[in-house]
Amino acid sequence: MRLPQVEAATGLPPEVTIYEVGPRDGLQNEKAVVPASVKVEFVRRLVAAGLSTIETTSFVPARWVPQMGDAEEVLEALGADGVGRARPALVPNLRGLERAEALGLQAVAVFGSATETFAQKNLNRSVGEQYAMFEPVVTRAKDAGRWVRAYVSMCFGDPWEGPVPVGQVVDVAERLMGMGCDQLSIGDTIGVGTTGHVHRLLEALDARGIGPERVAVHFHDTYGQALANTMAALRDGVTVVDAAAGGLGGCPYAKSATGNLATEDLVWALTGAGVRTGVDLDALVATSVWMAQQLGRPSPSNVVRALTPPPTP
Amino acid sequence: MRLPQVEAATGLPPEVTIYEVGPRDGLQNEKAVVPASVKVEFVRRLVAAGLSTIETTSFVPARWVPQMGDAEEVLEALGADGVGRARPALVPNLRGLERAEALGLQAVAVFGSATETFAQKNLNRSVGEQYAMFEPVVTRAKDAGRWVRAYVSMCFGDPWEGPVPVGQVVDVAERLMGMGCDQLSIGDTIGVGTTGHVHRLLEALDARGIGPERVAVHFHDTYGQALANTMAALRDGVTVVDAAAGGLGGCPYAKSATGNLATEDLVWALTGAGVRTGVDLDALVATSVWMAQQLGRPSPSNVVRALTPPPTP
Repeated sequence: MRLPQVEAATGLPPEVTIYEVGPRDGLQNEKAVVPASVKVEFVRRLVAAGLSTIETTSFVPARWVPQMGDAEEVLEALGADGVGRARPALVPNLRGLERAEALGLQAVAVFGSATETFAQKNLNRSVGEQYAMFEPVVTRAKDAGRWVRAYVSMCFGDPWEGPVPVGQVVDVAERLMGMGCDQLSIGDTIGVGTTGHVHRLLEALDARGIGPERVAVHFHDTYGQALANTMAALRDGVTVVDAAAGGLGGCPYAKSATGNLATEDLVWALTGAGVRTGVDLDALVATSVWMAQQLGRPSPSNVVRALTPPPTP
Repeated sequence: MRLPQVEAATGLPPEVTIYEVGPRDGLQNEKAVVPASVKVEFVRRLVAAGLSTIETTSFVPARWVPQMGDAEEVLEALGADGVGRARPALVPNLRGLERAEALGLQAVAVFGSATETFAQKNLNRSVGEQYAMFEPVVTRAKDAGRWVRAYVSMCFGDPWEGPVPVGQVVDVAERLMGMGCDQLSIGDTIGVGTTGHVHRLLEALDARGIGPERVAVHFHDTYGQALANTMAALRDGVTVVDAAAGGLGGCPYAKSATGNLATEDLVWALTGAGVRTGVDLDALVATSVWMAQQLGRPSPSNVVRALTPPPTP
């Protein structure tokens, strides 16, 4: 089936940057360790499919996230293609930044929490204490001319605390962006948010000087809301969207979190609406099918399933 | 997890009527015949969960759709609760209407096609010939004071013909609505449409005098677009949305069709955005879990899965 395409839809930007998180957010919680060679091949295939921006790995200690213990191996294999400004990697702290610096990375991301409970579970710190951890990282990265993204997780709901007030998220975002970060990624880690909530948060961020041109959205599809919420954010001026090829992902510290918005479902929506992404959908679907084979289970992406013939019984 | 709720979102109507199609569109393609008593219980549970409008069954010949062969049995068991203006049933032809009349139904629906290939496969007629079949049905139903809905299927793409031009859909819709139908339901039977396409179609219908107040949207989630497309339609003034509890559904004559938009995922989106639906989400989820047990497989609804604890391993 060909995708019906119409002229650019009202209220959407002409072009969207997909920030592909499959190799990092998508894989970090896989129980079976994926070989570094597979991760390298995954990134290479994503590049070949036209994904311009790819978060490659995380410099988190291997004892916290064993799956990301091969960050150096993956990036050394990627060579020049793994270190540019469109190849950020997560750095949880100064030690992580030092590892990224040693490899010559030009872009990094820090990962904060909007809620106390998740800050404790994920960072072993309070919301207030996380700033002390991130500030030297951001300052040093910016001083060296690096591009820095600030993630804020649990921006809509928290499995322990329930709905998260917009003001609380904006406070955290303001502190992190005030350190000099280039981009803010607002995460609905457990996927409970809805379109009006997205609008209110973007509005509140804008009112505090964090306009949509500096904001990316990061939605998980646990409650089936990820694409609808993304389209709402795009109409509010956001032009950077986090997604994971094949809908990979989840979060071990947030039991109700499932996969990220599938890059394929997003590309289908945007291409149909006349929004440019630069992605070759067939190549991307083939990549996710290949990755699903490596992981030993089918992709949860609707588009991947729709475009992939079921196995002959 | 509680659903975060915010004030009514910009551009959405204050209230939406969910036209529940689970008992008809959701079940009609189940291979194993579901007992009439289960169908009756399904409708009763949906009523109890607050669904105001429920399409109960189809008066299609049993040799075409064996699953719907018990229409009389289901409606007789439902009694007064099965015949009101908010309990439409599908009538494919005059014979179907006579069966509905004999039971005292006050609302019926006809089911047309926007494409030649699907008209042939589903109706054994051309697009032109379908009008001759539907006109006496609609005229007779309207003359007797009944409420009549006109479905148009394959409004966005067709598995054999590819993308369907907006003008072709509007022509079919205009012919059917010109017969005196009260409501038009535009169906993306194979789920390929995107938000801009939805907007263009609604705009084109409006330009021909079929305004959004008379239009319902009917999306299947094959490519993950159903909820995003629904929200786009609501911003364009549509206030009636077809959905199936638990995401049931599919179409045997259109191989790439999967389930309808899940009512739960829709209710989550609307409740979060401050739009009233009258539905008790917990009761609805319990209904879909019960129905999934009857069918012997898990519900594809994201919300049902998220709110239902996985079985202990």
